[in-house]
Amino acid sequence: MIATPKSMLFADPLPLQSGATIRDYSLSFETYGTLNADKSNVALICHALNASHHVAGIYAGQDKSEGWWDNMIGPGKPLDTNKFFVIGVNNLGSCFGSTGPMHVNPDTGRIYGADFPVVTVEDWVTAQARLLDALGIQTLAAVMGGSLGGMQALSWALQYPDRVRHAVVVASAPNLTAENIAFNEVARRAIVTDPDFHGGHFYEHGVIPKRGLRIARMIGHITYLSDDVMNEKFGRQLRVLTDGDDLGNYLFSTQEVEFQIESYLRHQGDKFAEYFDANTYLLITRALDYFDPARTYGGDLSHALARATCKFLLASFTTDWRFAPKRSREIVKALLDNRRDVSYAEIDAPHGHDAFLLDDARYMAVIRSYFENVAKEVAATAPDRSQQDTAPLRDSAVREALSENGVATSVGARL
Amino acid sequence: MIATPKSMLFADPLPLQSGATIRDYSLSFETYGTLNADKSNVALICHALNASHHVAGIYAGQDKSEGWWDNMIGPGKPLDTNKFFVIGVNNLGSCFGSTGPMHVNPDTGRIYGADFPVVTVEDWVTAQARLLDALGIQTLAAVMGGSLGGMQALSWALQYPDRVRHAVVVASAPNLTAENIAFNEVARRAIVTDPDFHGGHFYEHGVIPKRGLRIARMIGHITYLSDDVMNEKFGRQLRVLTDGDDLGNYLFSTQEVEFQIESYLRHQGDKFAEYFDANTYLLITRALDYFDPARTYGGDLSHALARATCKFLLASFTTDWRFAPKRSREIVKALLDNRRDVSYAEIDAPHGHDAFLLDDARYMAVIRSYFENVAKEVAATAPDRSQQDTAPLRDSAVREALSENGVATSVGARL
Repeated sequence: MIATPKSMLFADPLPLQSGATIRDYSLSFETYGTLNADKSNVALICHALNASHHVAGIYAGQDKSEGWWDNMIGPGKPLDTNKFFVIGVNNLGSCFGSTGPMHVNPDTGRIYGADFPVVTVEDWVTAQARLLDALGIQTLAAVMGGSLGGMQALSWALQYPDRVRHAVVVASAPNLTAENIAFNEVARRAIVTDPDFHGGHFYEHGVIPKRGLRIARMIGHITYLSDDVMNEKFGRQLRVLTDGDDLGNYLFSTQEVEFQIESYLRHQGDKFAEYFDANTYLLITRALDYFDPARTYGGDLSHALARATCKFLLASFTTDWRFAPKRSREIVKALLDNRRDVSYAEIDAPHGHDAFLLDDARYMAVIRSYFENVAKEVAATAPDRSQQDTAPLRDSAVREALSENGVATSVGARL
Repeated sequence: MIATPKSMLFADPLPLQSGATIRDYSLSFETYGTLNADKSNVALICHALNASHHVAGIYAGQDKSEGWWDNMIGPGKPLDTNKFFVIGVNNLGSCFGSTGPMHVNPDTGRIYGADFPVVTVEDWVTAQARLLDALGIQTLAAVMGGSLGGMQALSWALQYPDRVRHAVVVASAPNLTAENIAFNEVARRAIVTDPDFHGGHFYEHGVIPKRGLRIARMIGHITYLSDDVMNEKFGRQLRVLTDGDDLGNYLFSTQEVEFQIESYLRHQGDKFAEYFDANTYLLITRALDYFDPARTYGGDLSHALARATCKFLLASFTTDWRFAPKRSREIVKALLDNRRDVSYAEIDAPHGHDAFLLDDARYMAVIRSYFENVAKEVAATAPDRSQQDTAPLRDSAVREALSENGVATSVGARL
């Protein structure tokens, strides 16, 4: 499946939760599959920290350019693009296409940097809803996300209860724990105190706070994996020398790589520092910290989730200690307190938080089964089957919507 | 109880596991209680990462100068200094008195810095044994430590099986997991990549890599606490303003303190960076990484522990995810495989790894009960009760031993 990134510009100011507004911003997105005649088969995918609108498929002529959830989404896959019109959208503040800290602030003519407004999960959902408006799509058959993406899916059900039929919330939580916030804070401090950060305006200095980004990524990576899978994959194995020999003996060094886990983490940190934006890291971890729908209800999650009327699938993974199953069960309980229709799968998987991106057979079967039922609902409610079958609107609906709304489709400029 | 720090100089080179040697080094130590006539009531305390020879008591005229295990050790306390002669010793490479990276290398006349040789748990134990030799003490009634200190207690039983009657190993492990090493490595990278580290020779530049030390401590601190106790203590509470008001609303900032957990962690990091040496941090975390008595036995811990002949008490804490109970159980199992006399207490405590330093009633009762039995053994084996009772050797034995061995007692110079 070939994916084609698109971009939509929004001239109107978007009011943000912080009180700030952002205007003349663009959202990058991709679509897969065919929109049906009554636009009732739309599934929106929300991304987590290190991901983008490129959810599935590959880019033409680029091998190994698979989208980040390509194992989940595509023709014949658990979320089947033969049945659903799937939209991936990059969030505001990202560094992968949508307007973010690396772009120019139209109010000042300077690169935003640390002046990019703080965005929340709710702000992202509002922006996503505006994109759907622009595409002429009123209702989502489903909204799905994992981790921070799951928070967006949950927030969709709360902010736009009339526009969502199903919310699929994977490996997520109703808010961060103190420990979650603590890990985010250490990562942010590593970035902010890197002398190359320059108060968030490092672009002007021609430098990148790579030291901080490396540390941030290393910390994050530890929390994505389970203790078990780390022990299985690396254990206490010493690094392998370039000639392929295990060193066999300790080097007795505090700074050289001694254990394979060290080599792995340093590599992950180095890679990340090459492509991820430091200000984006701050913004996205802060959005995680802030998400807490129960907050304005005195911490009463059941009360907070009363607004949600859609059906839910929750999934969690037994070895995920970042967003542990008990956090998903909190959401399940709060929904059941409101007599909502909720399915819950607690998957016995060894891979920790990362499991939501991996091919676990039971996990994939649960999602597939759920979406097969959603597809049946979509088919049952379609007003005119013959019209739909004879007039596939692959991407053309999007183009129509774009022209109807008079907005541009240029790909957002990247620095 | 008033404590008096002492120091002993060792002129003879100490061969280290790495192949390097260290000479003209000093060890700082303190003693509490009275050595009995046959020197059979000695308990040695081994310290963990951020501690020293100042285990118990206070310094004369200094309120709030309690030793780090003062709740455990003293007159009438679980390890009762009315019965035991307790020795606290600061390890080589520390920054609290014994020779370390902040001292001058006699071979070069320069401050060691990053050139301080890598030291292991086994090296520390060897150095501690030399201190006992110098004090004229052949046998330990008990050696005790928590965390990294527990590793030293275990290593004592393996390196000097004839010199230890009891080993008390609290909140420890037979080696670090990949995840443990990973956290250490991130902390080390934060320090080493701080531009103020200068390859470990920052002293000459008049700077301290405080940014890295702060990050290291923040990471460490998260792993010392349990998720539960963090949630109970801080939860998602927002910071309190200086006038005592909770802000009530988000600041919407990525860099300012928003949650109390952030304020707490930053404070811990700031404090630590003021007094802890960066090279010491590298050395001590590396000693943790390297400890693995089963390593030379093909990973067979039972085989490795066959050398140990003393009696053991193991204790662990249910919410300790840094050194989880299952790690202590590995040691227990390996000892039982060798038909050793081993007691094991798994304490249901909420405080995570930190619990080993705190006042948990069940924990304290277990240690008290164990040492009461050790004291009975000591009394039962004393050769001449009347002589012991009429000639208390409070500290005088130490002075005698010092003069017998011809070593100085000057307090090691600190930078």
